[in-house]
Amino acid sequence: MDIGLPDRKDREAILKVHFVKKPLAKGVDLDSLAAKSAGSSGADLANIANESAIIAARNSHTEITQSDVTEAFERVAIGPERKSKVMTEGDKRVTAYHEAGHALVGHVLPDSDPVHKVTIIPRGGTGGVTWFIPPEDRVFVSLVQFKDMLARGLGGRIAEEIILGPDKVTTGAGSDLPSAAGLARDMVVNQGMGSKKLRNQVFHVDEGMMIERLVHEREYSDETAKAIDDEVESLITEAASRARDVIKANMHYLEVLKDKLLEKETVDAEEVKQLLSGAQMPKAAALY
Amino acid sequence: MDIGLPDRKDREAILKVHFVKKPLAKGVDLDSLAAKSAGSSGADLANIANESAIIAARNSHTEITQSDVTEAFERVAIGPERKSKVMTEGDKRVTAYHEAGHALVGHVLPDSDPVHKVTIIPRGGTGGVTWFIPPEDRVFVSLVQFKDMLARGLGGRIAEEIILGPDKVTTGAGSDLPSAAGLARDMVVNQGMGSKKLRNQVFHVDEGMMIERLVHEREYSDETAKAIDDEVESLITEAASRARDVIKANMHYLEVLKDKLLEKETVDAEEVKQLLSGAQMPKAAALY
Amino acid sequence: MDIGLPDRKDREAILKVHFVKKPLAKGVDLDSLAAKSAGSSGADLANIANESAIIAARNSHTEITQSDVTEAFERVAIGPERKSKVMTEGDKRVTAYHEAGHALVGHVLPDSDPVHKVTIIPRGGTGGVTWFIPPEDRVFVSLVQFKDMLARGLGGRIAEEIILGPDKVTTGAGSDLPSAAGLARDMVVNQGMGSKKLRNQVFHVDEGMMIERLVHEREYSDETAKAIDDEVESLITEAASRARDVIKANMHYLEVLKDKLLEKETVDAEEVKQLLSGAQMPKAAALY
Amino acid sequence: MDIGLPDRKDREAILKVHFVKKPLAKGVDLDSLAAKSAGSSGADLANIANESAIIAARNSHTEITQSDVTEAFERVAIGPERKSKVMTEGDKRVTAYHEAGHALVGHVLPDSDPVHKVTIIPRGGTGGVTWFIPPEDRVFVSLVQFKDMLARGLGGRIAEEIILGPDKVTTGAGSDLPSAAGLARDMVVNQGMGSKKLRNQVFHVDEGMMIERLVHEREYSDETAKAIDDEVESLITEAASRARDVIKANMHYLEVLKDKLLEKETVDAEEVKQLLSGAQMPKAAALY
Amino acid sequence: MDIGLPDRKDREAILKVHFVKKPLAKGVDLDSLAAKSAGSSGADLANIANESAIIAARNSHTEITQSDVTEAFERVAIGPERKSKVMTEGDKRVTAYHEAGHALVGHVLPDSDPVHKVTIIPRGGTGGVTWFIPPEDRVFVSLVQFKDMLARGLGGRIAEEIILGPDKVTTGAGSDLPSAAGLARDMVVNQGMGSKKLRNQVFHVDEGMMIERLVHEREYSDETAKAIDDEVESLITEAASRARDVIKANMHYLEVLKDKLLEKETVDAEEVKQLLSGAQMPKAAALY
Amino acid sequence: MDIGLPDRKDREAILKVHFVKKPLAKGVDLDSLAAKSAGSSGADLANIANESAIIAARNSHTEITQSDVTEAFERVAIGPERKSKVMTEGDKRVTAYHEAGHALVGHVLPDSDPVHKVTIIPRGGTGGVTWFIPPEDRVFVSLVQFKDMLARGLGGRIAEEIILGPDKVTTGAGSDLPSAAGLARDMVVNQGMGSKKLRNQVFHVDEGMMIERLVHEREYSDETAKAIDDEVESLITEAASRARDVIKANMHYLEVLKDKLLEKETVDAEEVKQLLSGAQMPKAAALY
Repeated sequence: MDIGLPDRKDREAILKVHFVKKPLAKGVDLDSLAAKSAGSSGADLANIANESAIIAARNSHTEITQSDVTEAFERVAIGPERKSKVMTEGDKRVTAYHEAGHALVGHVLPDSDPVHKVTIIPRGGTGGVTWFIPPEDRVFVSLVQFKDMLARGLGGRIAEEIILGPDKVTTGAGSDLPSAAGLARDMVVNQGMGSKKLRNQVFHVDEGMMIERLVHEREYSDETAKAIDDEVESLITEAASRARDVIKANMHYLEVLKDKLLEKETVDAEEVKQLLSGAQMPKAAALY
Repeated sequence: MDIGLPDRKDREAILKVHFVKKPLAKGVDLDSLAAKSAGSSGADLANIANESAIIAARNSHTEITQSDVTEAFERVAIGPERKSKVMTEGDKRVTAYHEAGHALVGHVLPDSDPVHKVTIIPRGGTGGVTWFIPPEDRVFVSLVQFKDMLARGLGGRIAEEIILGPDKVTTGAGSDLPSAAGLARDMVVNQGMGSKKLRNQVFHVDEGMMIERLVHEREYSDETAKAIDDEVESLITEAASRARDVIKANMHYLEVLKDKLLEKETVDAEEVKQLLSGAQMPKAAALY
Repeated sequence: MDIGLPDRKDREAILKVHFVKKPLAKGVDLDSLAAKSAGSSGADLANIANESAIIAARNSHTEITQSDVTEAFERVAIGPERKSKVMTEGDKRVTAYHEAGHALVGHVLPDSDPVHKVTIIPRGGTGGVTWFIPPEDRVFVSLVQFKDMLARGLGGRIAEEIILGPDKVTTGAGSDLPSAAGLARDMVVNQGMGSKKLRNQVFHVDEGMMIERLVHEREYSDETAKAIDDEVESLITEAASRARDVIKANMHYLEVLKDKLLEKETVDAEEVKQLLSGAQMPKAAALY
Repeated sequence: MDIGLPDRKDREAILKVHFVKKPLAKGVDLDSLAAKSAGSSGADLANIANESAIIAARNSHTEITQSDVTEAFERVAIGPERKSKVMTEGDKRVTAYHEAGHALVGHVLPDSDPVHKVTIIPRGGTGGVTWFIPPEDRVFVSLVQFKDMLARGLGGRIAEEIILGPDKVTTGAGSDLPSAAGLARDMVVNQGMGSKKLRNQVFHVDEGMMIERLVHEREYSDETAKAIDDEVESLITEAASRARDVIKANMHYLEVLKDKLLEKETVDAEEVKQLLSGAQMPKAAALY
Repeated sequence: MDIGLPDRKDREAILKVHFVKKPLAKGVDLDSLAAKSAGSSGADLANIANESAIIAARNSHTEITQSDVTEAFERVAIGPERKSKVMTEGDKRVTAYHEAGHALVGHVLPDSDPVHKVTIIPRGGTGGVTWFIPPEDRVFVSLVQFKDMLARGLGGRIAEEIILGPDKVTTGAGSDLPSAAGLARDMVVNQGMGSKKLRNQVFHVDEGMMIERLVHEREYSDETAKAIDDEVESLITEAASRARDVIKANMHYLEVLKDKLLEKETVDAEEVKQLLSGAQMPKAAALY
Repeated sequence: MDIGLPDRKDREAILKVHFVKKPLAKGVDLDSLAAKSAGSSGADLANIANESAIIAARNSHTEITQSDVTEAFERVAIGPERKSKVMTEGDKRVTAYHEAGHALVGHVLPDSDPVHKVTIIPRGGTGGVTWFIPPEDRVFVSLVQFKDMLARGLGGRIAEEIILGPDKVTTGAGSDLPSAAGLARDMVVNQGMGSKKLRNQVFHVDEGMMIERLVHEREYSDETAKAIDDEVESLITEAASRARDVIKANMHYLEVLKDKLLEKETVDAEEVKQLLSGAQMPKAAALY
């Protein structure tokens, strides 16, 4: 298991090094930045420090403030906001339902990380973002956590399906679906998390562990490839179905969050928790 | 979703920059150019400005006129007109029916963009052109919009089939068919818009989103490839059938537009709307 | 549709440019050369002009004559005559039947271009040539025209089959068959001219027309490949059968043309028309 | 069979050469180091000597002590300890059960090498390590030894499955599974240790042994690839099932070792033997 | 059809050029050399002239004699004799039967070229040679000629099978079989000489003959590949069976030629004709 | 058939050249060295001469003795002895049975070459060696000789299977099995020695022998690949079964040779012949 990325302690130390010659306002909380930047590399952290200084300068701050640091972190993680981006009212509405779908499913499912922020302001190359951050530095991911990730990843498309109808779904899920496909394939091919026959088997052989000599021809048969495809398809279908069950059981909350997004464009963790506090997980979405 | 191309506001700003040192006639409307050039890159826009100056010079205009700008835009988007191009009467007639087919199907179907212009003057590498421009800067494309694009794209070949008979269809659809094939395949493979099992699944995995390590062998099975082929074939067959239904129900309008094309060679948006104003969508062409 | 090659007017203009400094005999008809050189590129035309001068010099002409120009055109289009080439009597007879087969089938079928010339003098890398030239600058080719091209292309091999018997057919069809195979495959794969399911579908996707992102894995399934193979096979089988029907119904004319070829080695358009003027298309060779 | 690596005598000699100019403390036992470093190359041994000197310096030892040498050996074999690595309590518990699973299965199965050390301190890129060292320089590995290696390799994942439940297994087995897959594939493809038809056959042909000329196309059929996949799957399934039988029959010992690991983080060979001394192999895990 | 190699007249002219400065003995017959060197390139002919001079010098001839020229021709065509090559009596006997098998089958079958020479003296890389030369410059090869080539090519292996028994056949056919396989595959894949469905179809598409654009993916389906394999297998099986029929019906002549080969090592065209003059083609070997 | 390697006479001549300036002891027999070095290239022979001088120097011989030459030959053919190599008693016993298995099967089967030497001293990269040398310079290898080579090649693994039991076979056959697989595949793919349909067919086409033009796509179908796999599997299974029959019928001799190997480590041709003189071929191992 690759645990080579810096952990929370490492990240705090690295951030301190990079901010050492920068005029940091009093009270800026590098530790909480370290906490929420799990998964960042050393280079990412250096980048955040530099962007903070640039943003502070642009804002005519003499010292780098907490909000400069936060903006810098989000720029590095997702790309800059594009507030000027013209979006039609129709596209905005689609985006609001789509992001609300991700957030609602992620909020309701028991093994998903909590929602950190939802926004319908385009950032970098995306129309909107729903952001999940794990509460602590996690080393292992379990099968049920993967399944909740899959379901929340499909939450946007499924919200469109329910609101617009199945024939009106859009290209708005254009990057969610490849992510879900990649995750599902990873579970089956690399994590031995397929069902029955494929369980505990992986298809990415560690050649260096072979005794005596390497396998010359690594390629599995077309029938095995089909078995893998079937597992992936079944994971995606199950995830879509769980997302559908969650949203249908909580239509009121989908509307509430959508409305808030159209009103405020960005909704943070606290407010999401509050708005969706009555949402319930339907039995149908439980893993048996 | 890639929304990296300049949007309408961006395009207007970019055009203004490129025209700043060019003698633009009073009243030339860069904003409407910005509106209709959705999908153009910054380089395309610079190109339009330069071509405008060249065309004005060729026309001995001391200032760049609205028509110079329009001609420049069309040259950049489709290629120069080839008025001198010798076409036999038979080929002209085939072209007129073919383009009228595209225009009629696009005009009638509810989720297609409106027709912008139809011409049987060869341009660049094509025998004729029917041009559709979306009314506003669209970020998302929906499944039904894709289906109407497919049907209007096949409208030319289907018009030939109906008028000439199935054994006399020509190579005139030589670029329409690869476009339709590409669009249908994109829907199935990248947009999760296949039917049943393939819905919400994509086959272009985002490897960067995988947890922990990359899938070594990305290739799906031959049976899955067949399922994709079947979906593509079914989308094409449905689109051809819808185009056929639309044209057969509106033969009078096909003839009217064909005649006008043979008479005037180019017909613009307004005139198309007027000529086809009585055309009706038959029930058979509706998506159920 | 690629209409990028120069058309008749273009060709005449290009020829005039290339002959401008060459001593052209009075009355040499560049316009008719332009007419019959459809499909030639600008470079081919320049080549013809240069070869004309060389051939005139070799023939000690002080001016370039019509026959010098004609010889130059044929050299460029097919390669130089090899009159000295030793061929056995048997091989000559096979060649005469073979070329007569091409000519007869092409002459009889209604949608074939007319025969321009037939020869059993080896040229470049071929044992004999039957040459078809379209009567005007054609932009579109129809399905029935393709089918007649296929049938006349197999006419040589089928004439051998009928005269020598199926077990004595020779390598004389060594370049006809790959041409026919290429044409049939093009119809199915690129022109959407397959039957039933494959009709209107092409298998050479225009990737630039795809919305948003490219298909990663373009390859269709083996079952689809088989469907394409079957269509190709059926086009070839139909074409062979039509060629067989035409020749069997006109055996007298095959013998007449063969005899004339053995006598004169080269027979031109006029004479072919006259010799075969009584040949009839049998019902069996009609397309339904 | 590749027996090219240095054997025990060679290793002792090589170590002596590399330590000759280094201040080795009296009583440091290079011979036992030679014994446990089976499988190391000459370069690995040189590396150990250098690391010993560095570690001694870091520890302010004027001579290289036995513990410096041992630490150096483990650094080279698995990577440095990362004691500072933050792990959540949950992850630590998962790791402890996981490593205890490897150790218990390896300890109980009759043809496995003995456990050398178990630790839940992260080292290099792994969350914990269970280390097996063969008692003597072995040249041949037998089929039953391979099968016990497979079972102990899956012991970690199976312990998670039993303790956490099948839906909560984690990515903690992320490198065990590719190792097991590689080993099983090697048995089938290179060692002729498949069952029935595949027994004594290998699929990595020694081309240099062929008489007269090389096989041009080495690739076996897809059906044979499937037969190989089936054998691999059956080896993995059998191994998982034996690991499950061993652990279920010895749940008490799993808990004992897990507790000791959480308490002491590292447990050595002697202590493992003592803690697990009552563990019994259940009949079900025997090879019939 | 490629007829680019020099024909007989060309070859005679080329030979004369290369011998022009060489002391050729009176009466040396370059024309007959031209006749039997069909298939040689210009470079081969230059090579023959040079080798003739070298051989003459080695033989201390002041002029190049007919026998020097003949030896030079054979060196260039097959490689130098290796008279010193040690062969066991057993291997000599196998070779004699093997070459006699080739010669007998080729002599008896009606559409084979006549035997030019048979030898059991190793030459270049072969154990013995049977040499067939066509009587005249042939441009076309017919299907029945191909079939007789296949049968005579297998005549060596089949003679071994009959004399030694099927389990004692040797590697002596090591180059005959790839030649036969290549020939049979060429008939099916490139010459349209397969049976039924594959007749008149070729699988090596002439891409330059395609209309408008190239096929992107040229590869036929696996089922078509199987159909080709079946045709090839059936051609080889038929040829082996015809060779068997010829030899079994003429065992006496096989022995006679074998004995003569063991006695004289080389037997020329005249003598072969005489020794085998009573051999008869059995009905079973006829093509129906 | 490639007979390009030097034959016995050639080898003797080459050896004499390389030894000409070396102080060869009287009576050293280069001719017998030439006899047993069949298959060596000129470079191998030069190598033997140089190694002889080096070994003589190391042994402080003033002249190169017969034993120096023999040691040099074996070094070049298999690699140097590694007497110092530590092997456990268990591994030694496995090796002794393994090599005795090879020797016994090769000794008993009628078409195998005679045993030249058996040793359990590791040499180069192998644990032990059994060496077969053909009695004379053989040009052809027959099908039955190939089959006996296969059986003796599997004799080591089968001896392990019988003595240790099928589940205790080791990696000791790690290079025997790829050799056997290569040999069997060569018989089927290159020698036309498959059964029924594949007999006389080869799958390594000699492209240079094709008439007129090359096959574009050489690859046979997957079904043909399966047919080849089946033939290979059947040859290996038959060979294993014959080896098993031979050993089971001669258990006493296996033990005798094994004991002698453990006692003396190396046993030569004479002694093997004597020890195994009573061994009999069981009927079951005969080829029918």
